[in-house]
Amino acid sequence: MSIFQVELKKVVDDSYEIEVGRSLAGKLVQDLQHGLMGSLRRFALITDSNVESLYAQPICRLLTEAGFSGEVFAFPAGEKSKTREMKAMLEDRMLQAGFRRDCFVLAVGGGVVSDLAGFLAGTYGRGVPFINYATSLLAAADASVGGKTAVDTPLATNLIGLFYQPKKVYIDIDCWSTLPGREIASGLAETIKHACLADADFFAYLEKHMEEIRAVSPDACEHIARRNCEIKYRVVMKDERESGLREVLNLGHTVGRAIETLSGYRLLHGEAVSIGLVAECALSVRLGLMTGEEASRVKALLSRAGLPVRIPEETDREALVRKLYTDKKVRNGCLRFVVQKGIGQIAEFRPGVFATEVSEDIARELLLSME
Amino acid sequence: MSIFQVELKKVVDDSYEIEVGRSLAGKLVQDLQHGLMGSLRRFALITDSNVESLYAQPICRLLTEAGFSGEVFAFPAGEKSKTREMKAMLEDRMLQAGFRRDCFVLAVGGGVVSDLAGFLAGTYGRGVPFINYATSLLAAADASVGGKTAVDTPLATNLIGLFYQPKKVYIDIDCWSTLPGREIASGLAETIKHACLADADFFAYLEKHMEEIRAVSPDACEHIARRNCEIKYRVVMKDERESGLREVLNLGHTVGRAIETLSGYRLLHGEAVSIGLVAECALSVRLGLMTGEEASRVKALLSRAGLPVRIPEETDREALVRKLYTDKKVRNGCLRFVVQKGIGQIAEFRPGVFATEVSEDIARELLLSME
Repeated sequence: MSIFQVELKKVVDDSYEIEVGRSLAGKLVQDLQHGLMGSLRRFALITDSNVESLYAQPICRLLTEAGFSGEVFAFPAGEKSKTREMKAMLEDRMLQAGFRRDCFVLAVGGGVVSDLAGFLAGTYGRGVPFINYATSLLAAADASVGGKTAVDTPLATNLIGLFYQPKKVYIDIDCWSTLPGREIASGLAETIKHACLADADFFAYLEKHMEEIRAVSPDACEHIARRNCEIKYRVVMKDERESGLREVLNLGHTVGRAIETLSGYRLLHGEAVSIGLVAECALSVRLGLMTGEEASRVKALLSRAGLPVRIPEETDREALVRKLYTDKKVRNGCLRFVVQKGIGQIAEFRPGVFATEVSEDIARELLLSME
Repeated sequence: MSIFQVELKKVVDDSYEIEVGRSLAGKLVQDLQHGLMGSLRRFALITDSNVESLYAQPICRLLTEAGFSGEVFAFPAGEKSKTREMKAMLEDRMLQAGFRRDCFVLAVGGGVVSDLAGFLAGTYGRGVPFINYATSLLAAADASVGGKTAVDTPLATNLIGLFYQPKKVYIDIDCWSTLPGREIASGLAETIKHACLADADFFAYLEKHMEEIRAVSPDACEHIARRNCEIKYRVVMKDERESGLREVLNLGHTVGRAIETLSGYRLLHGEAVSIGLVAECALSVRLGLMTGEEASRVKALLSRAGLPVRIPEETDREALVRKLYTDKKVRNGCLRFVVQKGIGQIAEFRPGVFATEVSEDIARELLLSME
């Protein structure tokens, strides 16, 4: 018997820049010409059917004019495309087009594009570099920091994927002007979540500027894009692998994800999270961590953002409770919930523990009694 | 416009142990009891239909008796199972069985099992730890060092995957006694390749002990298991991402992989590599890097190992040349070949360049004139 030691200790630098601004396609080309991707000249631009003609094709043309070669690979827009099968289909199209290891992936689109393209890049040729060109508020709020990429499967959301960092993120707020109002609102749910969990001043800013934001005023948009990154960065940096602190990002998501699934994805992610935030505010109030007035402020802000704040009438609330408590994370009959302490702070129950255990009975009582 | 810097520089330690020995299942249990996987108690044991009842089920029972809980997930043995679809099927079965992020993957089997299970582990819950319990000589020679995991697709071999390191590798040479002779021979092809590219003494050892090795004598097997790891480690360590030096591991593989594909996988990987080694020795001789006698020694050793040394009669040699030269890595009509300089050394053409460009005409002439 003998033991052989494989030494693989090394310094890894996955640092990258997030650039927030207006009409950043020209800047992207310039960065590439200045060597952002080293000597790589071949790009696979991955996008969805909504974004393809609006932004992806023009960016592809600019890159081609600048001497890069590549192709656009578009898939049908929507969360339903975030699957292993769609990833395989895109891989096959790239292989067919002759892409091997010496290429980079350019994701142009919202959160679904960045999740799917980032995961694809992470396993294509055992990892090719990728750039994230975010065209939606949700992508700016959610997908720019943290390196999470994933697909959904019939049995689990976001469970198959990778931590894979982009080489650079562009947040082009000019693109937000073409977003449907519902998409803007959906992105604002994550933004409001960030304010709730980390920044009372930012919450007040959102209350003051909500109309400008919904009208996609550039200054307000730039501010919230940047603030989203900063808050998420502060949380994620302390805990790159999801355990202690990172869990706070689940605020509103425990109930939200269950509602999203039960709606058959008729609700957008942010819409479901909005309802989840209201539910978890009610729990905070019950736990004595938040006043009724504070909960009302959160609800009012979500509502002004154009988001639903009530469980949809067609949702079977008993089924919702069952869905929550048949989830495998249930321990001793209890589910962990992240809750706020007032506005702008997360309740910390013990040092490093940012969630509280809630029994099925209490959750049922809360969810059945919600407006 | 504003720029936000995400700092993600950190020290990563992926070091691990390879333990070579006989009947290591007990040692595996002991290591787990001593905290090899931290607090994780739940395992998904991934294996194939050949290994399932021989080794996987007994290991599963031992682990269960020791207080761990888990299940065996077996797939049909063979390279044809190394697909995205099989990975998805195993993921779905794990999800169905309630596996989430708090589990580890235990791969029990040969190279196909370790490639597939390692890739699965790397993306399950965005990465759960895995242990590689190698039961074949090929896995010991090829899959224990380097962290390469992958699946095949209709258009490419091993192109979709990850670099993902195991937490520990066990090479149980007792398992080799149940390998069919053809599998032993196939593993010996990679072993002989390692000797050819890095170690003349090891080559002489193989010449001297080939009969013992084929009879699975424990001492000889332990020696070659260890030497395989050492050679591959020396090469891989200097170049974790495949570029310069790591390319030398492709010795015999350029022609070998093409023959393997053209055979419709009727040839085992090692058998195809064996023929590829003979072809690339012929090229070395032509380039004046190797004597005819040295090439004959390599061919004789492969033959004594029970490996084919001739292109199969049914292989269309013209199709073989076309297959090689329609591969996308062709540049200026030339393909890169790694070749030996004598026995035990790789030819270095310029500092850090371990391959030479060969035109289609020369390759055709060589392949058509091979015995």
